[in-house]
Amino acid sequence: MELRDIAKRIEEKQGIPVSVRDVARVISAVLTSSDIWRIVDMAGIPVLATCEALRALEEAGWVTFQNDRVLLTANGKEAAARLGIHPVEELRCPRCHGRGLELWPFQDLAHEFHELAKDRPEASQEFDQGYVTEETTVARIALLHARGDLAGKEMLVLGDDDLVSLAAALTRLPKRVVALDVDRRIVEFLRTAAKKKNLNLEVLQHDLREPLPEELLRRFDTFVCDPTESFRGYLAFAHRGISALRGPGGAGYLGLTRLEASLHKWRRIQLALLEAGAVITDLFPNFHEYVNWPYIETMRAWPHLPVKRVPGKFEPWYRSALIRIELVEEGKVENVRYSGDIFTDEEAATT
Amino acid sequence: MELRDIAKRIEEKQGIPVSVRDVARVISAVLTSSDIWRIVDMAGIPVLATCEALRALEEAGWVTFQNDRVLLTANGKEAAARLGIHPVEELRCPRCHGRGLELWPFQDLAHEFHELAKDRPEASQEFDQGYVTEETTVARIALLHARGDLAGKEMLVLGDDDLVSLAAALTRLPKRVVALDVDRRIVEFLRTAAKKKNLNLEVLQHDLREPLPEELLRRFDTFVCDPTESFRGYLAFAHRGISALRGPGGAGYLGLTRLEASLHKWRRIQLALLEAGAVITDLFPNFHEYVNWPYIETMRAWPHLPVKRVPGKFEPWYRSALIRIELVEEGKVENVRYSGDIFTDEEAATT
Repeated sequence: MELRDIAKRIEEKQGIPVSVRDVARVISAVLTSSDIWRIVDMAGIPVLATCEALRALEEAGWVTFQNDRVLLTANGKEAAARLGIHPVEELRCPRCHGRGLELWPFQDLAHEFHELAKDRPEASQEFDQGYVTEETTVARIALLHARGDLAGKEMLVLGDDDLVSLAAALTRLPKRVVALDVDRRIVEFLRTAAKKKNLNLEVLQHDLREPLPEELLRRFDTFVCDPTESFRGYLAFAHRGISALRGPGGAGYLGLTRLEASLHKWRRIQLALLEAGAVITDLFPNFHEYVNWPYIETMRAWPHLPVKRVPGKFEPWYRSALIRIELVEEGKVENVRYSGDIFTDEEAATT
Repeated sequence: MELRDIAKRIEEKQGIPVSVRDVARVISAVLTSSDIWRIVDMAGIPVLATCEALRALEEAGWVTFQNDRVLLTANGKEAAARLGIHPVEELRCPRCHGRGLELWPFQDLAHEFHELAKDRPEASQEFDQGYVTEETTVARIALLHARGDLAGKEMLVLGDDDLVSLAAALTRLPKRVVALDVDRRIVEFLRTAAKKKNLNLEVLQHDLREPLPEELLRRFDTFVCDPTESFRGYLAFAHRGISALRGPGGAGYLGLTRLEASLHKWRRIQLALLEAGAVITDLFPNFHEYVNWPYIETMRAWPHLPVKRVPGKFEPWYRSALIRIELVEEGKVENVRYSGDIFTDEEAATT
């Protein structure tokens, strides 16, 4: 039994590029926890690849499933020791949860945002939604502020079930905040909150597969966007954001998971961002923590899980990195229409 | 007086690509501190570009120099307000200093490392040296461990005035640690410490302009490297590291400043790293803090500073980002000899 055979099996069965090291990551995760969601989280490879790896490891007698637990067998433990595979040590700072940011100055914002967000629309599978924790949204605002992308700036939020535009406008620091969303519930929610709090926040209903309205092109200093993670879909969303920037010095904030995007796909995405005229200035893994969505049991990955347990709403397992880009040249993107399914590929798990 | 004129002047006089936003960054920094080193640090653009910007701002009557202080004039303040330029808010977590890592489990390592590092060789301008704080070295070890690049792994350190190889070996976690350095003082120091502590640490004297010895090629899981920052020099060092990796899943840790590398250069470097078969998995700005080196007054940037003050040894102003890359394909690099000066370009400040 070789790790390389498991990697090959995953590539063949799931069409997901996986390295020998990725298989070792799954074993490291099982060395650290017997809980399926912690394993998925710590393995940090596409969910479907973790599921396939666990099944292969079970067939090899290295792993066993007991009720909803995943356990390493004596053979598995011996193999891990022989291969020099160690448990995961996350070493996340307990104060900032690994983001490196001090949120104390945003305490009032956190309270105000919490009050408003109580009545937010629930995540909908129809629109590939799934929102981050309130703390994550506040941390994003803090990072924007620390990078000089908030105060006095004009910002555009492309798809906003995370309510970033609301939190940004609540700080009263930006010059202008515009949010786009395809979901009428989000649009109405943001508009109602903006009216109630008298916020400088414009909200437009817009399907991001459609070109950006002319009046939004080259008008912003900052964009924020949490793209769908098929390669084509990711670039579609990122290019919309870039086309909204005024030019060099404009900044974009994008989420990207390891759970629906292999490092192969990450590389292709990074190349495309650089080729569009941007540079990566920050990349914080596990910056975003998600609140579990109500459609866990109908998501694509569910039938693949070797053991099944519905996680609690605030039991984080789905995280994503935050990538900040900045244009150093004029953005090289086209504002075209995208048709067909831009949401799904082999690595998709939650759609 | 337009920011774009200042940007153009810097490009023409110093040959450094600078955006209007970069000039605004210098003004933001002056809004926040009157100390030249804090301004250089917070502006986050090449030191020589900050110096040139300050001179231009003084000529425009926006900035004035008093003794060793840099102050915004009434005109300058009015202009900042008009242009919507705000002070810098660093929002660095006070526990982890913005790195997001918990160092508590490495307390013993920190003490042991501190005792050994007391007698380290002082930074030498001849070899473009300048070492990071002890805390930074420990934090690097923590990040390697958190990413699974330390325990049970074979690691190579290319150039080691930071003594990363020593700290790594002290954890007793890696399978093998090899350090290369051109400076005989560093080689001797590491060897003596290794012997004293009975560490699994091999040290070779090697000039990184020369090809890697055959027996180090494709032999390692992890490399650590703090390259010189001319574009050619950076790639030379990075390619050496990549050529030492076994293949896909191998990881590299590289430093990169904003003070000697413009975002233009960052983008070219990132493109080259991706083209070599790697992906960027982490990018933490300001991860590394440097101890001030004894040759401040003979470094290239010194005569350019509009006001002069020798900073204290432990008064950090020179920081750099930490970039983690991982190979997703076989590394596409050549192990060739580099001749001539690979250390200097227009953006160099400390050589």
